Amino acid sequence: MTSTTLSIQDLGQRIEAIFTRSGMNGPQAGAMARVLTAGERDHCKSHGIYRIEGTLRTVKAGKVNPVAVPVVTPDDGTALVRVDAQGGFANAAFELALPELAARAKKLGLAAMVINDCTHLAALWPEVEAVAAHGLAAMVMCPSYATVAPTGGKDPLLGTNPFAFGWPRPDSDPYVFDFATSVAARGEVELHRRAGKQLPEGWALDKDGHPTTDPEAALAGAMLPFGGHKGSAISTMIELLAGIMIGDLTSPEVLDYLGSTTLAPRHGELILAFSPEAFARGRAGDPFARAEMLFGAITGQGARLPSQRRFRARAESAAAGITLSADEIAQLERFQTLGLDAV
Amino acid sequence: MTSTTLSIQDLGQRIEAIFTRSGMNGPQAGAMARVLTAGERDHCKSHGIYRIEGTLRTVKAGKVNPVAVPVVTPDDGTALVRVDAQGGFANAAFELALPELAARAKKLGLAAMVINDCTHLAALWPEVEAVAAHGLAAMVMCPSYATVAPTGGKDPLLGTNPFAFGWPRPDSDPYVFDFATSVAARGEVELHRRAGKQLPEGWALDKDGHPTTDPEAALAGAMLPFGGHKGSAISTMIELLAGIMIGDLTSPEVLDYLGSTTLAPRHGELILAFSPEAFARGRAGDPFARAEMLFGAITGQGARLPSQRRFRARAESAAAGITLSADEIAQLERFQTLGLDAV
Repeated sequence: MTSTTLSIQDLGQRIEAIFTRSGMNGPQAGAMARVLTAGERDHCKSHGIYRIEGTLRTVKAGKVNPVAVPVVTPDDGTALVRVDAQGGFANAAFELALPELAARAKKLGLAAMVINDCTHLAALWPEVEAVAAHGLAAMVMCPSYATVAPTGGKDPLLGTNPFAFGWPRPDSDPYVFDFATSVAARGEVELHRRAGKQLPEGWALDKDGHPTTDPEAALAGAMLPFGGHKGSAISTMIELLAGIMIGDLTSPEVLDYLGSTTLAPRHGELILAFSPEAFARGRAGDPFARAEMLFGAITGQGARLPSQRRFRARAESAAAGITLSADEIAQLERFQTLGLDAV
Repeated sequence: MTSTTLSIQDLGQRIEAIFTRSGMNGPQAGAMARVLTAGERDHCKSHGIYRIEGTLRTVKAGKVNPVAVPVVTPDDGTALVRVDAQGGFANAAFELALPELAARAKKLGLAAMVINDCTHLAALWPEVEAVAAHGLAAMVMCPSYATVAPTGGKDPLLGTNPFAFGWPRPDSDPYVFDFATSVAARGEVELHRRAGKQLPEGWALDKDGHPTTDPEAALAGAMLPFGGHKGSAISTMIELLAGIMIGDLTSPEVLDYLGSTTLAPRHGELILAFSPEAFARGRAGDPFARAEMLFGAITGQGARLPSQRRFRARAESAAAGITLSADEIAQLERFQTLGLDAV
């Protein structure tokens, strides 16, 4: 069997059709298709079509509302833009509230989007990039499910809690990072297990709290935060700001709600947007030009900026399309034909 | 010679008198005395009376304005509270602008204090705690001077760029962390050098970019960020948000300005304040009560919350006073007698 090359647009339409077939409404199917297509386009396979199955499984389990219509709370004069995802996917809520977030951040210098009652299974970088496209810096965070022990502890409590940041660059892709605050993403532990490979040291504890390199023992135990007590503190901050402060679930509460780490987590999300123009007003120097000097000093000494591999892949996909294996195409066809019966 | 025990208040007055004797005005001497007393009180010796000498040296070098009167920009209807430190110490500017930051955060849900043109040599936790005392969560960051290589690079570019966070706790000291985004603080490398001890692996590179455990080679080379590429990315974010975005110096620019790492750095500072009450409004659950459950789940499995050693020391100091060695007392007397001639 041979591989197939699709344009970015064609792949997006196929994914959207699958989601529509599975009962998702226009905003939900469209938003989820856009982020999963972006993952595939950027050769970020773990956030590409691989996630269709988890999306459908979460719909089938009744843990997400496939026909949710998110609602943005009217402007109350604060810096907070609230969007109630109504139990749908975070991405549909984000897309709806983004223009208001951008307007509020430009007006006030700084604003926050709070997404409540959403299901989240996409990467954060599509959101960071979407904020940066408005000329704004972005900081985004959310809980996950309890799989990570706080440093010095032994039981899963924190999530892999992603932390992402973006800075707009006028003449190129934005400066973007997006990483788990655990040493590794849970999916990487799972990939080691499937491949029969040991984990690197420092990734995980077994269920008794002892360091382990056995992926089975790690999955039954707890993963560790990145960077020791510092990463553990940042992950705790994410539980506080993007769970508790916004009145949404923490990682242990998410796991209680789902009873499983195989479904997409249900929680909230916090997106901060900063206007560099407003912050720099009245000060010497153009912040965007100065940032380029910093980036030049990083790459000039041989260090890399984050996300560059993704941006190269994106350019390749735009020029040459996205190539999927025969197995992947067959799976897309199966999802299209069977809908939720495929999972 | 014997040690001497002073009350917290007495030590504060002695430090303030030294700063007044050295030509600092009331706001500058008072603010700096309060933070260094807090360091000594919390047994945080690296941010206690040890820093008097560096403060005086920076005044004597003409790199800080000892009689600066900070100016808060009038409310322009945004979420930004700007305070021009007028070349003085950050802490005097912070104290002046804090009530406005707290008021703005309570009104808008979220607000930022931007301190420009300040000299900074204190820890960030006193500021985080002061924001938390208003019932607000705080995120604080600032550049430093270029001593840290970005991951994958070899030359000093980033600062040790501290990142601090606080969450108010109604019935106890706040949840607070405050750490360098380098593996270790530069002072720790210096302490290893003085003690003739090798550094742990992973702390530093020599001037050719090779890993080193020799503190001399490390001081001539570059320190490394904590947590590999993730810490490097966070440190870069701090240069962008708390240097470039606020129209103030980045870590390499600070080093150019001072020409030395022995003087206190001149730059800006960014303080974000969040109102949990505003963010949680209309949602189920009290955010402060829910946070206590999270903290209980952390400590209940044997992990520690950050800053607890400081808080225990604080309680001891309140009960029994602060004990200084005969050498330390002699040095305080010398500073008091000689003023800037002592450094």
